[in-house]
Amino acid sequence: MDGVPVDRGFFADRGSLRADDYLELTYRFECVDDPEAAAAHLCQEMSTAQWRRVGQDEDFRPRHAARVLALSVLDRSARSLMAAPWFAAREYACCQVTLAYPHVNFGPRLPNLLTVICGEGAFHAPGINAIKLVDIEFPAPFLAAFQGPQFGVPGVRALLQIQDRPLFFGVVKPNVGLRPEDFAELAYQSWLGGLDAPKDDEMLADTSYSPLARRAELLAPLLKRAEDRTGERKWFVLNITDEVDRLQDHHDLASRHGLGAVMLNGHTTGLSAVRALRRRATLPLVAHFDMAAPLSRLPHFGIASSVLTVLQRVAGFDAIILPGFGRRMQTPEEEVLANVQACLRPLGALRPALPVPGGSDWAGSLPGMLSRLGTRDFGLVPGRGVFGHPDGPEAGARSLREAWEAVSRSVSLEEYARDHPALAAAIRAFGPVL
Amino acid sequence: MDGVPVDRGFFADRGSLRADDYLELTYRFECVDDPEAAAAHLCQEMSTAQWRRVGQDEDFRPRHAARVLALSVLDRSARSLMAAPWFAAREYACCQVTLAYPHVNFGPRLPNLLTVICGEGAFHAPGINAIKLVDIEFPAPFLAAFQGPQFGVPGVRALLQIQDRPLFFGVVKPNVGLRPEDFAELAYQSWLGGLDAPKDDEMLADTSYSPLARRAELLAPLLKRAEDRTGERKWFVLNITDEVDRLQDHHDLASRHGLGAVMLNGHTTGLSAVRALRRRATLPLVAHFDMAAPLSRLPHFGIASSVLTVLQRVAGFDAIILPGFGRRMQTPEEEVLANVQACLRPLGALRPALPVPGGSDWAGSLPGMLSRLGTRDFGLVPGRGVFGHPDGPEAGARSLREAWEAVSRSVSLEEYARDHPALAAAIRAFGPVL
Repeated sequence: MDGVPVDRGFFADRGSLRADDYLELTYRFECVDDPEAAAAHLCQEMSTAQWRRVGQDEDFRPRHAARVLALSVLDRSARSLMAAPWFAAREYACCQVTLAYPHVNFGPRLPNLLTVICGEGAFHAPGINAIKLVDIEFPAPFLAAFQGPQFGVPGVRALLQIQDRPLFFGVVKPNVGLRPEDFAELAYQSWLGGLDAPKDDEMLADTSYSPLARRAELLAPLLKRAEDRTGERKWFVLNITDEVDRLQDHHDLASRHGLGAVMLNGHTTGLSAVRALRRRATLPLVAHFDMAAPLSRLPHFGIASSVLTVLQRVAGFDAIILPGFGRRMQTPEEEVLANVQACLRPLGALRPALPVPGGSDWAGSLPGMLSRLGTRDFGLVPGRGVFGHPDGPEAGARSLREAWEAVSRSVSLEEYARDHPALAAAIRAFGPVL
Repeated sequence: MDGVPVDRGFFADRGSLRADDYLELTYRFECVDDPEAAAAHLCQEMSTAQWRRVGQDEDFRPRHAARVLALSVLDRSARSLMAAPWFAAREYACCQVTLAYPHVNFGPRLPNLLTVICGEGAFHAPGINAIKLVDIEFPAPFLAAFQGPQFGVPGVRALLQIQDRPLFFGVVKPNVGLRPEDFAELAYQSWLGGLDAPKDDEMLADTSYSPLARRAELLAPLLKRAEDRTGERKWFVLNITDEVDRLQDHHDLASRHGLGAVMLNGHTTGLSAVRALRRRATLPLVAHFDMAAPLSRLPHFGIASSVLTVLQRVAGFDAIILPGFGRRMQTPEEEVLANVQACLRPLGALRPALPVPGGSDWAGSLPGMLSRLGTRDFGLVPGRGVFGHPDGPEAGARSLREAWEAVSRSVSLEEYARDHPALAAAIRAFGPVL
């Protein structure tokens, strides 16, 4: 705001604040002004832009302003990090700032939280060229207003009766265009081979050529038959992404048919709709990350994907599909790990959500994922690795279970493949094991 | 998808397609491979990633694939447009591609549309470094499923009984922290001075220190009194942004109190929630653009703000607040104009939405906006320009009306200010007139 003086009203010591009153937001930004002035401007635009009435002696900042808790200059450079020509300068400073943001300004509501953290205030702050929200921390009283995952990792494991291993999801492929009858048959084969939870692709929801109701009624008896034949619990994860006033009905359809779980592209429905569905849901909710990439994919702009993942968990997702390792997603390893931690780390009283890193996965991805993640609490979600397996989906699914058998016996996949033809064919088609 | 050959199945001539079956999506992207291969990959990832079952002779692409209608290389450069280090190369090609996307894949549903246009397919396509959706065109049968604005420009004008001039909105400031009693008094003064529709700031919704119900009940009698004293129709635009299951109640509260209109930060609630509210709304819906900036603000990545504006209109907003001219928003003039066109241009049978370009506006912004926009069908939405006016909000609002009087008499603002003290004080405080 031109002409409004920037002063110490937008700075605070942690010790002077009640920790329960504030969220902590960490942004990285590039500025051309003095970093302190830029950080103060950021706080001002995000909170009390004009903090007194004309002619009144008052100051709303002590209770309502965002305030700088910590600020550091990470780098200075003659070249801007961003090709964002809003203003040019001779030198750019790359900074990291942690703000205390008083939640009395908006309350425990996701749309209003999003307005604050990724609204006009943060992303049109004067003097700031590029900005990315890299971390968010909530005080316990704020978080207590959210239910979070209904089942979470322990609940999902209990429902599927799998305690000892990662969960095997899978995306039925061809993802678009199959008749419901053919679709259900592919899912059935994958159950027989050992998949726990085949699922719809994120692009396949309730369509005219494959209505949700039709898929559900075809899948239901096959799921029961697969459970009988394998002696295992099975899910089909139905993609119920749709206009928000249809989500509950779709959820109830999946529940009525015993499909086990539903998936939503939560950023496209809005996370608030997920939170509303969570209140009455009886099935686990699985998140897909569509629309996260345009918000998060650049290193120096937007909102870190791990922040989006935390918000999905807060909204109530029990399992969260994420961009994973491997060439398909071109996502840095530390970003994948940060997303997995966003699912699993302590977060008030909220249950952990099951992380499901996805993208170009197959049986051979398993050893690397186990070692990189350092936990068995994750899901694998191949598409082509199961449904493009040269011997079909049953063999594709079997190759995953064989990979797990190999790992749990401390045998290399190549060695185990010698007398396990599904795994051997997978290695020939999709290998080498990395 | 590694190993899947790219062939002409992802290309088509316009003449070979039924125009009613496809949306047209125009992306700009930077690639390091052959542009045709990159464009085909993009289509593949956005639609039929695997287009046949294993062992079946079939091809789902003619009905379900996204296909390249036009592709051009805009530039080749040794320097990447983006600091996105997913892969480095010796040369980058900056391309523009128009795709035909079959809507049979998802149907007339906003979340599923968003999944397609800004999902994983588009934003994680192999070989593509940076990508931005710059335009979207809908066929009439697809658009016919949407109601769009209930009132639009003609309806808003009829309700406010203003046919001849731009509409004067205004953001009550201080935006955060005011007691409801003080807040209502400021709104009242702005009505008396000549504002048509003071509004809540996007960060002020239903808060513990200023509950929506309390603001509404305090504003209602003052609004009636202001209408009586001025002989004009008045609105207060209540910010009902909240969890989606509270929107209808908040709307009904505003309606019951005769406040005239409600505002939502639609990208944060989800546009689908806006569409659902629109079905039963009796008041005009005003959009705020929060969360648009992290999606749209970079020149070479994300989703063009004009596309987001079209989607807001499709969802049913009657008036759309947009980043405007002036230093505050640092938005290129052509982007502001593209957004205004997204509100006003023909779009099937949907009504035009009133564009409200905002940011650092005051009385002196009016002549420039009229000449640049070439229409009176817009709203002005000052904050400080009314509520930071040195003589208070009544004088601030009056300065806007005086500026309009000057313009409509073809007198310069400076000259008109000689015997109009509110305008004169505004020029001193916020000028010069640009």
